[in-house]
Amino acid sequence: MTERPDQSPITSLRSERVRKVAALAGRSARRKQQSFRVEGPQSIRSLLSQRADLARELFVTARADAAHPELADLARGAGVPVHAVEDQIIRAMVREHDVEDPSSAGPVSSNLGGALVNPQGALALGRLPAEESSAATAAIGALPTQGPVTVVVLHEVRDPGNVGTLIRTADAAGADLVVLTRTCADPYAPKAVRAGVGSLFHLPVVTGAEIDEVLETLGSADIATAATSGYAQDELFTAELPPRLAWIFGNEAHGLDEHTLQAASFGVRIPLAGRAESLNVHTAATVCLFETLRRRQARE
Amino acid sequence: MTERPDQSPITSLRSERVRKVAALAGRSARRKQQSFRVEGPQSIRSLLSQRADLARELFVTARADAAHPELADLARGAGVPVHAVEDQIIRAMVREHDVEDPSSAGPVSSNLGGALVNPQGALALGRLPAEESSAATAAIGALPTQGPVTVVVLHEVRDPGNVGTLIRTADAAGADLVVLTRTCADPYAPKAVRAGVGSLFHLPVVTGAEIDEVLETLGSADIATAATSGYAQDELFTAELPPRLAWIFGNEAHGLDEHTLQAASFGVRIPLAGRAESLNVHTAATVCLFETLRRRQARE
Repeated sequence: MTERPDQSPITSLRSERVRKVAALAGRSARRKQQSFRVEGPQSIRSLLSQRADLARELFVTARADAAHPELADLARGAGVPVHAVEDQIIRAMVREHDVEDPSSAGPVSSNLGGALVNPQGALALGRLPAEESSAATAAIGALPTQGPVTVVVLHEVRDPGNVGTLIRTADAAGADLVVLTRTCADPYAPKAVRAGVGSLFHLPVVTGAEIDEVLETLGSADIATAATSGYAQDELFTAELPPRLAWIFGNEAHGLDEHTLQAASFGVRIPLAGRAESLNVHTAATVCLFETLRRRQARE
Repeated sequence: MTERPDQSPITSLRSERVRKVAALAGRSARRKQQSFRVEGPQSIRSLLSQRADLARELFVTARADAAHPELADLARGAGVPVHAVEDQIIRAMVREHDVEDPSSAGPVSSNLGGALVNPQGALALGRLPAEESSAATAAIGALPTQGPVTVVVLHEVRDPGNVGTLIRTADAAGADLVVLTRTCADPYAPKAVRAGVGSLFHLPVVTGAEIDEVLETLGSADIATAATSGYAQDELFTAELPPRLAWIFGNEAHGLDEHTLQAASFGVRIPLAGRAESLNVHTAATVCLFETLRRRQARE
């Protein structure tokens, strides 16, 4: 790191540093500061253990430090400054102007789209990776050139909670890479980071991609591209799924555009057995990705 | 219907009838009025075509009536009163005190937990079914006594958006019945009805159940009960799944209690291939229910 973080204690709720962390709820502030927030012990543990290269600073309360001493240990081991702060400082840092859904803010609830806005006394700052369309090309080029590969491409997924949850599900289903086109919500938005519960740091996630470039690069890497469509002839459970496969998931309201559907190697239909007319994008992705995992395991 | 709905035109935003519909956001008002709200053409179409017996009244704007003439047709065909109203009346009827997440209120976004708060000029009132623990026993008794059956039991699922989304996914995966224990969020809350997108009217959904009674009744009906657990020995994709099967899904934060886990016929582990530590309840349910559907289709 070239810039050395300020080491002085933070005691005022109105300090410039608290204000700057709170501002990271906005995309322009994240770009300007080249930083993003990671809230809560589970996500911070993933950041520090998997992507310490992205970690800038850790803020912990005495209570959180007692409950999760490994956070400060991991941070110090990686040369990341640790700041002891009062709980009210953390709470001021995560105060958002855009009010979160109150029904998901209780101790029990966990709305699918956005986990709790309760950092449990721990907050970290990460270094925002550059958003360049070439990042996708490089990441696809870094995948194994032989053997099974699962890639998830998100195109025009607009809700940050959905983006975070999709990254979490991609991680759980063993995906090797997540590519977001530049029309997606930012996976570094606090709501997306929370919904991802650390998965953002478990597998490569690249942003700013151009869909045509991604499809072409996948093709060159011998990775087939699959899109879900209610009009596809083949059903997911009986379709042949190549071991090197990228799933493309589209917008929440109108799915994938015709151009992208046509450009994909093949389409599959998710069987709907009841009277539901459709599935939301996360449900559809869960079905496709876990069927892919099932096939991968059956082949092994 | 014994009580005849008021037929006079609604013109004032502050009228008692508008206020009463708006109050249906709250559970106590729903119980007192024995009514619930259904918002938007898709959900209303499901109500009127599948469960007209539950429909009380339909409110439509001229624009919604032009775009979806089938709504008023279905209502009249079922003897349900149709009221022409201004758009501002509908908007006043869905105004909620608990603010919804603003990020899911745009034209594009559809947060997983709660669809748009935009009734698109159409709102219906339904008759609230009675909440009795005996309803589950009766509904299980009404299932086919031979052949495959899929039941979904929700126990302590607290978020109305999750409840609605789970009902939608159960419907899509061809479940025959959804049973909610009395500690679940109310599936007739506006947020749950919206997230369900009509599925609430596609298959039997009963509330107010007692978990022990449900497990016992399922056993008597020769329906095995399955619970997901990270500690279970059998993995979902290789486990034997009986054709007559009830899945029990638990609380968002702490899953199923030990008593219920022990009482289930068997437990299965969902394979996690990446570094994600867990899945949220809806993702887990999606994987289990579509694997059940896949097996059902493979046997046919």
